[in-house]
Amino acid sequence: MKAAVSLLLALLLPACHTEAQCTIDNVVDLKVQAAITSIVSATLAKAKLLCQDVSARGALVSCPAGYKPTGCACGMGCGSWDIRTDSTCHCQCAGIDWTAARCCKIGV
Amino acid sequence: MKAAVSLLLALLLPACHTEAQCTIDNVVDLKVQAAITSIVSATLAKAKLLCQDVSARGALVSCPAGYKPTGCACGMGCGSWDIRTDSTCHCQCAGIDWTAARCCKIGV
Amino acid sequence: MKAAVSLLLALLLPACHTEAQCTIDNVVDLKVQAAITSIVSATLAKAKLLCQDVSARGALVSCPAGYKPTGCACGMGCGSWDIRTDSTCHCQCAGIDWTAARCCKIGV
Repeated sequence: MKAAVSLLLALLLPACHTEAQCTIDNVVDLKVQAAITSIVSATLAKAKLLCQDVSARGALVSCPAGYKPTGCACGMGCGSWDIRTDSTCHCQCAGIDWTAARCCKIGV
Repeated sequence: MKAAVSLLLALLLPACHTEAQCTIDNVVDLKVQAAITSIVSATLAKAKLLCQDVSARGALVSCPAGYKPTGCACGMGCGSWDIRTDSTCHCQCAGIDWTAARCCKIGV
Repeated sequence: MKAAVSLLLALLLPACHTEAQCTIDNVVDLKVQAAITSIVSATLAKAKLLCQDVSARGALVSCPAGYKPTGCACGMGCGSWDIRTDSTCHCQCAGIDWTAARCCKIGV
C-alpha cells in the first residue's frame, strides 16, 4: 500500500526534485516511449488493404458493409461512372449490362 | 495495465539478480506487451478508409490535399486514364467533357 | 531492491485489497492508458496510402508485391475490366493495346 501510494505520487507529481531524479525520469520516459512505439509500429506494419470485387447485372452494385469502393468497372466498355452514398458504383452509359465495384477496407 | 506501470520498474532494474526475479520480469514483460498490443489493436481497428469523389469539367481533376486517387472515371464512356504526380486524374480520350477522381485516405 | 521486487509482486496480484488501493490503481490505469493511446494515435496518424501506377502492353498487368489494385485503366477508351487473384488488372475489350493498374498499400 505504501509502495502504491509513493508510486502514485511519483506519477502524479509534475516535477522532479533532484537533478539525478530528473535524469532517471527522462531516461525511463524515453525507454518506455521507445518500447511502446516499437510495438505500435510492429502492429501497424501488419495493417493491410483488404480488397474484393463485387459485380451485378444492371447499372448499380454496392460494396459489402465495412468496405469502400475505390473504383468501378462497367460492361459495354463504358468508363463513365460515379459513386453513390460512398458505397455504390453506378455506371452511366445507357442500357449498361453489368457493373462491378472494387471494394477495399483496412484490415489488421 | 498494472503491468505497464511495472514496466517502469522493470526498466529501472538493469538486470535481474535472482532466478525468481527473472521469472517475474518475464511475466511482467509479457503482460505489458499484451496490454499495449491490446490498446494498439483496438485503436487500429478504428482506422478506416475515408473516400470522396471529386469531378471537374475537362480532362483533369485533382484530389484534395491528403487524399490519393484510387481510380478515375471519364465522360463520354471513356475508360482510358492515367494519374499524374500521384494526385491528379487525367482522362485520355480526345475532347473529354468531364473527369472524376475517387480520392481516399486513411482516417483514424 | 527488495521494495522493488515486492512492488512487482504487488502489481502482479490480480485484485486490490482496500478501497483506497483500488482507487489509486484506477487512476494509474487511466493515466497509463492515456499515455499509450496518445502514442498509438500519433503513430497511426502517420499511416498513409502509398500508391503507384503500373502499365504494360496487352490486357494484363500486375501490381508489385505488397500492393493491391484499387482500379484499372485500359487502352482504346475501354472501361470494362476485372481483377484476377487480387493482384492483376485485366482489360476485357477485344484487342486491347495497354492495361494500367492503380496499386496501393498502407505505409507507415
